[in-house]
Amino acid sequence: MKAMIGIVVVAAVVAVSARAEPAFPDADVSDPVKLGWMQGTPPPPEKRIAFGDYSFFTFPQWRWSFSHWRELMPTVGVSRGTGPVSELPRAERSDIDTVTFMPIGGAKPMTWAASLAANYTDGIVVLHKGRIVYERYFGALKPEGEHISFSVSKSFVGTLAAMLIAEGRLDPAKTVAAYIPELKDSGFGDATVRHVMDMTTGLDFSETYGDPDSTFAGYVAAIGAGPRAAGYAGPNGDYAYLATVKKAGNHGEGFTYRTINTDVLGWIVSRVGGKPFTEQLSERIWAPMGAEADGYFQVDPVGTPFAGGGFNMRLRDLARFGELMRLGGRMGGRQIIPEAAIADIARGARKEDFAGAGYATLPGWSYRSQWWISHNAHGAYTARGIHGQAIYVDPKAEMVIARFASHPMAGNVNFDPTSLPAYQALGEHLMR
Amino acid sequence: MKAMIGIVVVAAVVAVSARAEPAFPDADVSDPVKLGWMQGTPPPPEKRIAFGDYSFFTFPQWRWSFSHWRELMPTVGVSRGTGPVSELPRAERSDIDTVTFMPIGGAKPMTWAASLAANYTDGIVVLHKGRIVYERYFGALKPEGEHISFSVSKSFVGTLAAMLIAEGRLDPAKTVAAYIPELKDSGFGDATVRHVMDMTTGLDFSETYGDPDSTFAGYVAAIGAGPRAAGYAGPNGDYAYLATVKKAGNHGEGFTYRTINTDVLGWIVSRVGGKPFTEQLSERIWAPMGAEADGYFQVDPVGTPFAGGGFNMRLRDLARFGELMRLGGRMGGRQIIPEAAIADIARGARKEDFAGAGYATLPGWSYRSQWWISHNAHGAYTARGIHGQAIYVDPKAEMVIARFASHPMAGNVNFDPTSLPAYQALGEHLMR
Repeated sequence: MKAMIGIVVVAAVVAVSARAEPAFPDADVSDPVKLGWMQGTPPPPEKRIAFGDYSFFTFPQWRWSFSHWRELMPTVGVSRGTGPVSELPRAERSDIDTVTFMPIGGAKPMTWAASLAANYTDGIVVLHKGRIVYERYFGALKPEGEHISFSVSKSFVGTLAAMLIAEGRLDPAKTVAAYIPELKDSGFGDATVRHVMDMTTGLDFSETYGDPDSTFAGYVAAIGAGPRAAGYAGPNGDYAYLATVKKAGNHGEGFTYRTINTDVLGWIVSRVGGKPFTEQLSERIWAPMGAEADGYFQVDPVGTPFAGGGFNMRLRDLARFGELMRLGGRMGGRQIIPEAAIADIARGARKEDFAGAGYATLPGWSYRSQWWISHNAHGAYTARGIHGQAIYVDPKAEMVIARFASHPMAGNVNFDPTSLPAYQALGEHLMR
Repeated sequence: MKAMIGIVVVAAVVAVSARAEPAFPDADVSDPVKLGWMQGTPPPPEKRIAFGDYSFFTFPQWRWSFSHWRELMPTVGVSRGTGPVSELPRAERSDIDTVTFMPIGGAKPMTWAASLAANYTDGIVVLHKGRIVYERYFGALKPEGEHISFSVSKSFVGTLAAMLIAEGRLDPAKTVAAYIPELKDSGFGDATVRHVMDMTTGLDFSETYGDPDSTFAGYVAAIGAGPRAAGYAGPNGDYAYLATVKKAGNHGEGFTYRTINTDVLGWIVSRVGGKPFTEQLSERIWAPMGAEADGYFQVDPVGTPFAGGGFNMRLRDLARFGELMRLGGRMGGRQIIPEAAIADIARGARKEDFAGAGYATLPGWSYRSQWWISHNAHGAYTARGIHGQAIYVDPKAEMVIARFASHPMAGNVNFDPTSLPAYQALGEHLMR
């Protein structure tokens, strides 16, 4: 199985100190524009990237694909509504590129500027006190273009669920089956909404790829995001797949990262809200915050938006959402997200539940309502997607970072060492 | 061949007076929301609409599909840029629904309000002197949603070409081969750019559907918009297809409507402008005019945007473009489209070239640069797409109409009788 798409994968945890340098061309050499991917009308055959042959989900081709997701598959829009764009004031600073930090497990310091190339950054925006202090685009991404955010999508779905909880419309103690009777006989049936939100379900599903016999490969085939064998007779679409997932172990016994939890949560939000979660996202967050442009989700063969990893948007709109979180849900004189919902996220979950999952780069962290909580001195929390997608909210430094990237490796463990300390150093720098 | 998509088809011209009432459920009975198409999370199986089985391109399903095109296939965005939205001031009038007109070939008068249902209107906006005087949405379309415009797309591509001509960057007297050497040996090779723009090429291609052995069916298969036979070995993508089109007759001997002319024109605009015409459309029209939202084009299997009929946008953005045309290309204090380009379009082409094509509802009209020119007393000109998509610019009445519809019949001849006189009557009403 050559490739699969839009699926958030946590790479096997490796000892950071023993991490070998990846054998990939660097960010400059793999620049998709310089390489001529999809350049020209039409591009020459050897420079084309397509969905059908899965060339779009190989490196370095995905350095183009991640900024052109909608050109490869059907999508559903997340409308910006009909109002004005909320301005992001600018106060750009020239002293950021030279901010220096020590990578996790590293032997020598690195500059902020060097970290961007090291992480195959496609775009990065830093807000400080609500103003753009830094903004850069590389490769195939432009300010007016959208980029796949992979599992950063989860944090949007989790926030919508947290809003419904804060409003008393969704009960986190109730079972999944109470909201989605279709899942009664699945492994999700007796899990609570909270188990799903915090990924403490016990399920027969392993978030690994590369093995065509894995549960994961079956999931990808079902949602139409990867190859189906000839005569495929399995579930067609995400919801049909979720009903086939079996229980393994017990719910509530610790954090295990599985994208299918988010897909169930998206289903619950859609059912409780009475319309697809994508429409709720538009009406409740994207439009009220004054997004610059519509975002969009990839959809499965029956039109279901991929809650676990299919959201694409402009970088500045991603930053606007981070800023909305930092501000406790209040923007433009309007309480868009209940403050209680954000406070609950920022407080995090039980660190003990998280510790057992063995994330070497995230000691003392927890996972709450589809967000990753650092519990550090700045109270930082983040949304994270494979290949380098991120929102980083640092409340104490009054800083929000939004980043898109197309790193050759999927798991955050590969680029946390040159990202998390860089964010911390920048926050400290901006506080000075 | 059950269905095909995104292809503009001119229905066989019929004697209007002999036109039978169509045997289709009316607009209210076929309302996609009332019928439950794609409602629910997930929709019940019998209410799903998908690309794979071509259910999306059957009636009444397309009453949903036309407002959800991107959910069915890959698309490329036409960015609204990064600036503010241009406001369309409102001055809504309550006296429009009762405006009365006589349908072409009709026996009794009809009201404006009744014409909307008769035409299966999904949305309609009327601007008078730049203000919204009327705006309605029906069925699956919302103000913040996009709708396929089919051949209205052509008028955007034609306008871009006219801009390049006005700027001296494109020579309408040069041959297609001079700009696209790949088409040198095709039927397009010795056609001039003007022949392509005004559809006076002589080509072995018939704009008819329903026949799997037709040139048209081959075209649809090539661009990936309709079924391909098992083991299909024909051209893959629009540009590959265009190179196979043969000449028939002579160029310059009269108007014959063929969508492939527009595809060639899109290719020429892309080549001359040095980037895909979709990007030029964004940078030169969509962003400068302050569009509310991004539009998008459907793309073929190799990523080529479908110039002849693949543009989707919000209704108000379609109206903004019509208003930009009415204003001679000047909006917000800026000359966006050269006035000479618009004047050339509005002047029209040789009526004699058009007359032979036999459009019963368009006596004395002509076709210029991918626009339909009425040559009536108001100097009206229009962009037209199958199933009822339209921009109608009435310079004398200072009126612009943008309409989306999902009529059960493709050809404009089926709804011109209840559209064109309605537009004329409304223009006269607004002038009083």
